[in-house]
Amino acid sequence: MANPVLVATWPFGLAAVRVGSEVLTDGGTAMAAAIAAVSHTEADPEVDSVGYGGLPNSAGVVQLDAAVMDGRTGHAGAVGALEGILHAVQVAEAVMRDGRHVFLVGSGAKRFALEHGFQEQDLLTENSRNWFKEFQRTGIKKDFFDTIGVLALDTHGDLATACTTSGLAGKMPGRVGDSPLIGGGLYADNEAGAAAATGVGEDILKICGSFLVVELMRQGRSPQEACQEVVRRCIRHQQRETSTQCCFIACNRQGEIGGASTRKGFQYAVWKGEQDSLIEAPFFGGEF
Amino acid sequence: MANPVLVATWPFGLAAVRVGSEVLTDGGTAMAAAIAAVSHTEADPEVDSVGYGGLPNSAGVVQLDAAVMDGRTGHAGAVGALEGILHAVQVAEAVMRDGRHVFLVGSGAKRFALEHGFQEQDLLTENSRNWFKEFQRTGIKKDFFDTIGVLALDTHGDLATACTTSGLAGKMPGRVGDSPLIGGGLYADNEAGAAAATGVGEDILKICGSFLVVELMRQGRSPQEACQEVVRRCIRHQQRETSTQCCFIACNRQGEIGGASTRKGFQYAVWKGEQDSLIEAPFFGGEF
Repeated sequence: MANPVLVATWPFGLAAVRVGSEVLTDGGTAMAAAIAAVSHTEADPEVDSVGYGGLPNSAGVVQLDAAVMDGRTGHAGAVGALEGILHAVQVAEAVMRDGRHVFLVGSGAKRFALEHGFQEQDLLTENSRNWFKEFQRTGIKKDFFDTIGVLALDTHGDLATACTTSGLAGKMPGRVGDSPLIGGGLYADNEAGAAAATGVGEDILKICGSFLVVELMRQGRSPQEACQEVVRRCIRHQQRETSTQCCFIACNRQGEIGGASTRKGFQYAVWKGEQDSLIEAPFFGGEF
Repeated sequence: MANPVLVATWPFGLAAVRVGSEVLTDGGTAMAAAIAAVSHTEADPEVDSVGYGGLPNSAGVVQLDAAVMDGRTGHAGAVGALEGILHAVQVAEAVMRDGRHVFLVGSGAKRFALEHGFQEQDLLTENSRNWFKEFQRTGIKKDFFDTIGVLALDTHGDLATACTTSGLAGKMPGRVGDSPLIGGGLYADNEAGAAAATGVGEDILKICGSFLVVELMRQGRSPQEACQEVVRRCIRHQQRETSTQCCFIACNRQGEIGGASTRKGFQYAVWKGEQDSLIEAPFFGGEF
């Protein structure tokens, strides 16, 4: 019996880990807990970067990216630019269970979802409609990149991870960030650890950020050391350009956790046993 | 002045490297050479896994995946599930040059292409139409996964890579494989090397195959050692399941090259100076 752990990005991850903790406490799998946790955030209209209430793209359409990876089996599923389906992470899980493919995008992903019993719904809220009107008027995007990513370690000692996002507000139609990319926005392997990312998707995916965190744990780094090293890699890879925001969380099978960011202000939520808390991640790119 | 090199997947890569070699001989960049090389394959109706004449998905539609990465700048561009545009790799290049995003998919990718002057055209040929009729009748897919991936080293010592594919014949609509994933189907970093992949996209993307080849070169492995180690990782990651096909090619700034495969029969094309040749890659998963 391992001591179960949950780690989630951002302060809104606290509500997510509480939902996931009920699954783990009842003896559920890491995969089930991670999916339950991020599904909670998807359904929350107050979180404007995920699921229902997520801000739309430059055409006024909400397009969701999500993925899951099971550290025990190595299986994964993902969807990109999915429209009109609330629980993108559950569609990603269905892709994984189906097993024929790993990654479905656009109208094909929606078709798969509808064929698998998901219901179409309007993902816009009064708030996100108002934001879009303002965006059309001013052209000002919202500089938020708040993917919910959750890492879970269950009582069997298995790792899993899930993430979901509406992506960059005002993004170009069809834009896919790091979140649905296996090794970009998330990665899990029982042999090494699990990691998830949030920030500027373009910069995270160009260094396979979450995969690299897990590779460094495989080579012996602690979750904290691995996150910090990948943040430094982000900064080095971006040197020739503008500053970026890349944040990582990590967890291993021993229940050790870590987190780091290029910028000040990244907090992540942790649940261990009866306790949950928010941790302020160290940052390595200066205050922007 | 470095000695220029081109490496490409599969025997049809030989014609591609010959086209790319003209760019390098004229002092062109690695990026320009890689794009010219794979564009040649895209336009060839005889290659039924790439561009014009590529076999369609299960709905009878050709959906293309392509990507480019520049080892000098770290910039990248990619498109997934792109319909009706022949030179998907050139759309990927346009995404990179545009710079706002890295990865566009589905109808958004097509919209971007049309806005950037690409012309819509029918990508089906008499052969691919006939294949689809047979597929509808029998349900038998074609077990080919022949992405064209090209690595280029130019006379300035810069690395670049490009790849493009119509993906798995008879795939589900919206399915995206490893090819357009930065670190999946291709990766390039002047500090470490360049790599590209071909095979079962689902298995390559689950281990960020091309990124891992480059990481291992960063840690001191030769291109050949790096490819072999990643093939072994593919096999280990798949142990719990069926056998797979994952093939890699690699090149570093010194012009050393390598290639390896899980299965017998993977050949790759190399051009160095006046010489071009086909190399049979060593395989490590047995004969299936």
